[in-house]
Amino acid sequence: MTTTTAVGHRGWLDARRTPQERVELLLGALTLEEKVGQLHLAGDLDPDGSRADIAAGRVGAGILSGGAHPDGPTTSIAATAAGCQRVARTESRLGVPLLLGSDVVHGLATTFPIPLGLAASWDPALVTACAAVAAEEALAAGLHLTFAPMVDLASEHRWGRVGETSGDEPLLASRMGAAAVAGFQSGGRFTAAAKHFCGYGLVQAERDHETLPVGQVALHNLHLRPFRACLDAGAGAVMAGFHDVDGVPVHAHRALLRDLLKDGWGFDGVVVSEWDGIGQLVHQGVAADLRDAARQALLAGVDLDMASGAYRAHLPALVADGAVPPALLDDAVRRVLRLKLRAGLLDPAPEPRTAVHAPADAGPGRAATALARRAAAASTVLLKNTGILPLHGNVGTVHLCGPFVDDVDALLGAWVQPPGRETTGPTLAAAVAGQLASGALLVSDARFSDLAVHRAETADLTVAVLGEHPSSSGEDRCLPTADLPVGQLELLAELAAVGKPVVVVVVTARPLELRPVLRLADAVLVVWHPGGHAGPAVADVLFDRTPPSGRLPMNLPRMEPQGASGTFERASGRRLGRARDAKFGHYLNALGSPELSLGFGLTYTSFAYSELELSRDVLPLRGGAVRASVEVANTGTRPGREVVQLYLRDLVADVVRPLLELADWQTVELAPGESTKVVFRVTADLFAYWDRDLRRRVDPGEVDLVVGPNAARGSAARLVIV
Amino acid sequence: MTTTTAVGHRGWLDARRTPQERVELLLGALTLEEKVGQLHLAGDLDPDGSRADIAAGRVGAGILSGGAHPDGPTTSIAATAAGCQRVARTESRLGVPLLLGSDVVHGLATTFPIPLGLAASWDPALVTACAAVAAEEALAAGLHLTFAPMVDLASEHRWGRVGETSGDEPLLASRMGAAAVAGFQSGGRFTAAAKHFCGYGLVQAERDHETLPVGQVALHNLHLRPFRACLDAGAGAVMAGFHDVDGVPVHAHRALLRDLLKDGWGFDGVVVSEWDGIGQLVHQGVAADLRDAARQALLAGVDLDMASGAYRAHLPALVADGAVPPALLDDAVRRVLRLKLRAGLLDPAPEPRTAVHAPADAGPGRAATALARRAAAASTVLLKNTGILPLHGNVGTVHLCGPFVDDVDALLGAWVQPPGRETTGPTLAAAVAGQLASGALLVSDARFSDLAVHRAETADLTVAVLGEHPSSSGEDRCLPTADLPVGQLELLAELAAVGKPVVVVVVTARPLELRPVLRLADAVLVVWHPGGHAGPAVADVLFDRTPPSGRLPMNLPRMEPQGASGTFERASGRRLGRARDAKFGHYLNALGSPELSLGFGLTYTSFAYSELELSRDVLPLRGGAVRASVEVANTGTRPGREVVQLYLRDLVADVVRPLLELADWQTVELAPGESTKVVFRVTADLFAYWDRDLRRRVDPGEVDLVVGPNAARGSAARLVIV
Repeated sequence: MTTTTAVGHRGWLDARRTPQERVELLLGALTLEEKVGQLHLAGDLDPDGSRADIAAGRVGAGILSGGAHPDGPTTSIAATAAGCQRVARTESRLGVPLLLGSDVVHGLATTFPIPLGLAASWDPALVTACAAVAAEEALAAGLHLTFAPMVDLASEHRWGRVGETSGDEPLLASRMGAAAVAGFQSGGRFTAAAKHFCGYGLVQAERDHETLPVGQVALHNLHLRPFRACLDAGAGAVMAGFHDVDGVPVHAHRALLRDLLKDGWGFDGVVVSEWDGIGQLVHQGVAADLRDAARQALLAGVDLDMASGAYRAHLPALVADGAVPPALLDDAVRRVLRLKLRAGLLDPAPEPRTAVHAPADAGPGRAATALARRAAAASTVLLKNTGILPLHGNVGTVHLCGPFVDDVDALLGAWVQPPGRETTGPTLAAAVAGQLASGALLVSDARFSDLAVHRAETADLTVAVLGEHPSSSGEDRCLPTADLPVGQLELLAELAAVGKPVVVVVVTARPLELRPVLRLADAVLVVWHPGGHAGPAVADVLFDRTPPSGRLPMNLPRMEPQGASGTFERASGRRLGRARDAKFGHYLNALGSPELSLGFGLTYTSFAYSELELSRDVLPLRGGAVRASVEVANTGTRPGREVVQLYLRDLVADVVRPLLELADWQTVELAPGESTKVVFRVTADLFAYWDRDLRRRVDPGEVDLVVGPNAARGSAARLVIV
Repeated sequence: MTTTTAVGHRGWLDARRTPQERVELLLGALTLEEKVGQLHLAGDLDPDGSRADIAAGRVGAGILSGGAHPDGPTTSIAATAAGCQRVARTESRLGVPLLLGSDVVHGLATTFPIPLGLAASWDPALVTACAAVAAEEALAAGLHLTFAPMVDLASEHRWGRVGETSGDEPLLASRMGAAAVAGFQSGGRFTAAAKHFCGYGLVQAERDHETLPVGQVALHNLHLRPFRACLDAGAGAVMAGFHDVDGVPVHAHRALLRDLLKDGWGFDGVVVSEWDGIGQLVHQGVAADLRDAARQALLAGVDLDMASGAYRAHLPALVADGAVPPALLDDAVRRVLRLKLRAGLLDPAPEPRTAVHAPADAGPGRAATALARRAAAASTVLLKNTGILPLHGNVGTVHLCGPFVDDVDALLGAWVQPPGRETTGPTLAAAVAGQLASGALLVSDARFSDLAVHRAETADLTVAVLGEHPSSSGEDRCLPTADLPVGQLELLAELAAVGKPVVVVVVTARPLELRPVLRLADAVLVVWHPGGHAGPAVADVLFDRTPPSGRLPMNLPRMEPQGASGTFERASGRRLGRARDAKFGHYLNALGSPELSLGFGLTYTSFAYSELELSRDVLPLRGGAVRASVEVANTGTRPGREVVQLYLRDLVADVVRPLLELADWQTVELAPGESTKVVFRVTADLFAYWDRDLRRRVDPGEVDLVVGPNAARGSAARLVIV
């Protein structure tokens, strides 16, 4: 035991050496047991209980989390982190600090909108900015790693984890995932883990640990794309999924993890297991016991063992027995040490901010608060407006009702961290009151529906804030239907029957079936669980301090029984799109006509598009581009932001291709009467795909381009690739 | 043009030659256009409209069908067949008759229960007997080919085509499929087409033309198995599915059709397309036009082009241009000619029974009627019985109510053929009346629910015959929920509230959610659309002329939102089986605990099982067997038939294996007080599966055997494979 930090004894502390040299020096100094210790990510770290393990070098990393659900622990992450690091630095043989991770999904001290909400902004720069703040706060709390972003393509809108995704569209998920990685890692010391490799969005409902029936063509053309985008953005880690792919659990899937991800793509970061993901190989029936599970996972390419303890218990003997090649063990350790180096954990001085401080000390500055408020506003999607919105201060008496009006916690979302609860802004009721004359606001929460109706009769208009509590989302959660919680629609019908205008704000983590709401309300604004500053943000949008500018990140289902809802639908032998809206039958074929499509969102103004023009109608297979342009004009009376979307369709391919695929988008802000030309540069590689032999290719032949305000509307032009 | 039948000119007519010689002689006599004509299966044959085409040798086969739905055409199949053959024999250059097919799914003149109902008998011999009668009637009508059996593993109980399958269990589907093939082909001249190659049971709801997300391991371990069983039983044809497998439409799937089915398995029969399946390659976006579609389909291995006309229009030029090798064309033609030879169509004399006759002439004899009645009774599954069943003639006044009581057509099922409508037996009301004293039966159909309740008050007990009309099933059909049609449950609640005993007979083509029915009724009998002699059959069961002996062919869902229901569930990282029955959440995870499991069915007696005994607890990997035995005793007061089921589980494997897999079953008939020993011979190959590298293997190690009366109950024993 030594507390010296003299570089002489510990060459890896010498910043003058190359990173590679430093990693190799430390690797060379580790015993077999210490190497294995570096691969153990403890699920229950605390400075006292874990002291002996940390001191013995039997643990190299840990997870410190507030959990997914509102009743998670409130222990201070920062205090635990600092305490554990003190033990690691001063009591372990080599003084190597721990790599500490947490589920910093949509913020730590400052809670931003859930990922599906940020995706609704269609603004990657905003995603980057939010992730950068989250990383900064996480570093300040002593964390180095987040188990985010989740870039799985959701295939089931009732699934509990839809809100953690960026939806089901590969390009949107790719850009948002890459933007989050860029933000998390912008300071250079924090690491993002793209998850859940790979195809996990295909799980049905809450069967989060299930077999995925998926083939290689679908994996390559859809589910691998966002991961590739995250790696291209520099993601330092990837998390394996709980599921199995066509019978092979990911944690034992050598072809996916080692052959494709590491050897094929050249990923040199860390593959971290899911919680007890290695241990689950036994339950999944592919490993005889924990020792066998450890062997299979290491060989497959899992570097960090989260919580199962399989590596720590069995890897030393497996290596000693020759069942696991030492070179593979070293490779895994090297990857972990590289993350530590990057996090500054191999630097001589203690980390600058490991002092114990209360969570509030890591709280947001004014800039973070403003960003959270802006992000919440930017994620709202206006679905209907007969003209009642925006509200004016002199609108008369406003009745604000629903379960969210005075409950800030319920707006935070499923992955809120304990510090996030302590830094929230004012309630929605307080924020709306601030926009109105004194006495012009009546408030009723959802406890007495009869009282709410009486207040609606008294007021000049009602703003009903309905939707689902965050406890409806998260791991092991799902809903049998995509309806509003029981009773809410009935209350809305009563409110509408009063005869005064009704604005509905829908708070949700998934695309709900809103057809009845759209019928009853005069205006409908969707707010994906918007985080800690939702009150002022929603008030900003309602009163036009910030006009609504979000767009749907997924199709909105037309009716509940139709099941999953994807724009990224594939051609079928008989075309989809028969619009039957009876509750009887045809619940999946109706997918061709969702209630509202990907990309849909109203503003407080209106936009007109010219026909799509191409600079030429022939596109060379290699080297060359076509410019596809439309003139977009603000034809209304207010300024607004339009998201101009480019979709494409490949008419003939080696495999069945989507009817419509998002290919690009651009955002324009236009004053009333203003217009601008939006130009997309189209190259042949936009049409590249993986064929049945898993070769990437572009076919010569006809393709369609469509530019418009959402996936259901646009101006089309045909192009020939030659 | 010649009408001579002299063997000298047409060597293929010479029965002294080998079949191979005869096929080659005819092949050699055909022009290129005539060869292509042999591959054209016309969708709209009639003796007048098709005369020129038939005479010119431009059509080699045809489909004559009553269609899937009750409002199909009523043209006489026999008259059309005879007329077309007369043209082919006398006006075409070589006089080669047409190969005529039809959807003889569950009978032609005699309508048997739908396939899911026959599967509920767990009696392959019964399936064979029914199929043999159907083939006999079809041959008599001039048909040679049926597009059955459908051996797809249904993955979605709300799907419109569940009733055409044998459920979702691979072994049950394999044995029932093979039994149907054996029956259809028992006379040697009729051909069965196993469909829909391959994996089609994975389509969701009515998306019958959709992409199947499926990997090769699942295809091999599940979906290919029943096809293999059908081919082992000698199936002469296989039909391609409308769907695509991981992006590759089956009609262009060379790896599945030519490489695996034909070259790999050595299948020498005919691959027939789905209706316009080749034309759909254009809609699916993998073929540029019909010519390209024809080329891809022929190269992939589709022999017979049903209805699209792609082959006839383009194959001659494709062969002439060298785009399709002549040898591949010849191979396809040879396969069709072999079927014709087998059907007796290359024999010199006209077919013995091609005379025009009315459908009624092809009607069932007394034996066929008796078989249909027996099959319908054998397919019923008794789900609940408080003791009210069986009924006695002196039970008092019986009120028989519900939409099916006097509607024989509604009991026939979705694929009834026009002649089948003309040979039905008495109504259910008439059959029940025959069992009761005069005046002891009150009948009410579903028109007036208030009248039904009044009659229930008058009677001593009510038999309510509820369920779905056949129009709820079939292609392009599905249901958004698995509930009874609206209003029926409400009526049942009213009937139950009367306070007299209520027996419910559920008529259905899919496993419905019957929990509320099971709660309200004193006895529940499920009758899968039972065919033309349903009335007497159901009366037989109710009055114990034939005791109920069917068993569930699929799990019965516990609640509607839980989605598909499969016994063949796979292990997951976290075990399934949490039994939450709230409507809130968890709709799929509840799969581990269905309402009632595969194999469940009550009788009018009771059975007791001893513990499972093994002759030894070690099983050699090769050469050797273990005898697994239980003593089964009839502990009740009536005779009964018990279906003793063997399930297995492989504890550790290369891929995730099912939690429970049906491995065998045996049927015993026992008198009251009688008992018998049931012995299963267990060999290691029962545990064979396809691993991640698609190698077939058996692993040494521990496995479990379970013997019991259904998938949810049994006595287990562990075995070690060495």
